[in-house]
Amino acid sequence: MTPRLVEVRKNVLKKNDELARRLRERFAEAGVFVVSLVSSPGAGKTALLERMLRDLGARARVAALVGDLATENDAARLARSGAPVRQIVTGTVCHLEAQMVAAALEGWQPDHLNYLFIENVGNLVCPASYDLGENLRMVLLSVTEGEDKPLKYPAIFYTSDVAVVTKWDLAEAVEFDWETARRNILAARPDMRIARVSAKTGEGVLELLALLASGRRA
Amino acid sequence: MTPRLVEVRKNVLKKNDELARRLRERFAEAGVFVVSLVSSPGAGKTALLERMLRDLGARARVAALVGDLATENDAARLARSGAPVRQIVTGTVCHLEAQMVAAALEGWQPDHLNYLFIENVGNLVCPASYDLGENLRMVLLSVTEGEDKPLKYPAIFYTSDVAVVTKWDLAEAVEFDWETARRNILAARPDMRIARVSAKTGEGVLELLALLASGRRA
Repeated sequence: MTPRLVEVRKNVLKKNDELARRLRERFAEAGVFVVSLVSSPGAGKTALLERMLRDLGARARVAALVGDLATENDAARLARSGAPVRQIVTGTVCHLEAQMVAAALEGWQPDHLNYLFIENVGNLVCPASYDLGENLRMVLLSVTEGEDKPLKYPAIFYTSDVAVVTKWDLAEAVEFDWETARRNILAARPDMRIARVSAKTGEGVLELLALLASGRRA
Repeated sequence: MTPRLVEVRKNVLKKNDELARRLRERFAEAGVFVVSLVSSPGAGKTALLERMLRDLGARARVAALVGDLATENDAARLARSGAPVRQIVTGTVCHLEAQMVAAALEGWQPDHLNYLFIENVGNLVCPASYDLGENLRMVLLSVTEGEDKPLKYPAIFYTSDVAVVTKWDLAEAVEFDWETARRNILAARPDMRIARVSAKTGEGVLELLALLASGRRA
């Protein structure tokens, strides 16, 4: 990037961080635990979120914001869970920003919620730099993507709190090497919590929800 | 984005386009056909490229540039094909730019080549805006990512000439809906050429190479 672009980008990031801090305070006052999801396109964010909204929805008040460049398909899909869902259409912007979250929340009452999920645009690069005010960032890695992604996209793994290995039902078919993946995730962030799930079969989803619940109580 | 960031970005893109045009002229003079590959992380760019370098390498002079945020793993992997390969490490930059391609080519003699492949950073958003001087842009979509990606990431599909559906060997296991995928690809770009390949079994690779060869002769 040109030096001028770097400089302007720094200011944008600084503003974003300030707004994210205010959002985080607002969430804390309201008692809502905010979880963001980041991953490659097609790693299964929406499928996992659909599962979590359905399973959590019976016991807690949940809602979701979902980001995409185009289409409102994901919001329609997630709304089937019965949870309130809003779509953020970013146009050409490759990530969500705190101001988009703030705008999407207008008119909502987050103090009625226990959990708010924010699904980012499918992208393992750009979302790393933008704090959204979330309490916990979850990075998804599907077994079909290969074990090397944490080494190739270190920033997004480093800035996440939980790594979720998805599509576990396909692990055998693609000869996924769990030990190598685990080692690569821990190379990016040594204290990362790691979960394995299949949104298709439901395997591991309860354990992941328990992990979120313990984060919420902490 | 803020208006000022948009303005600076416009200038960056304009400079990139000028440099890309000069690169394209240089490639034409040298008689090298340049193919770029874009996709999500883990869609199989490197696996397909490894196959193509090996299969093409017996009949043509081929080389590759490969972009990643971090690690030189892909260059090492591709070098096993025997073709000359150079890694471009982008740091935090989410896409390749024409100047990175120009810098990576320094000291190389592209006029000794028939094909030059450029593997972009795994990202379905940012690379769409950056012309690299290539003759043909290939967007990969793996069957495990789902059929909806062309609708959600329209710009990268619209700016590509060929869509390659990868990991075809897994299509049945993930219940991939070919007709829906095809319809979505053509919604993004009605004249898109579409190929189906499995780098694992080799299915469809020859047909894809034939498609490249016809592009080169055109």
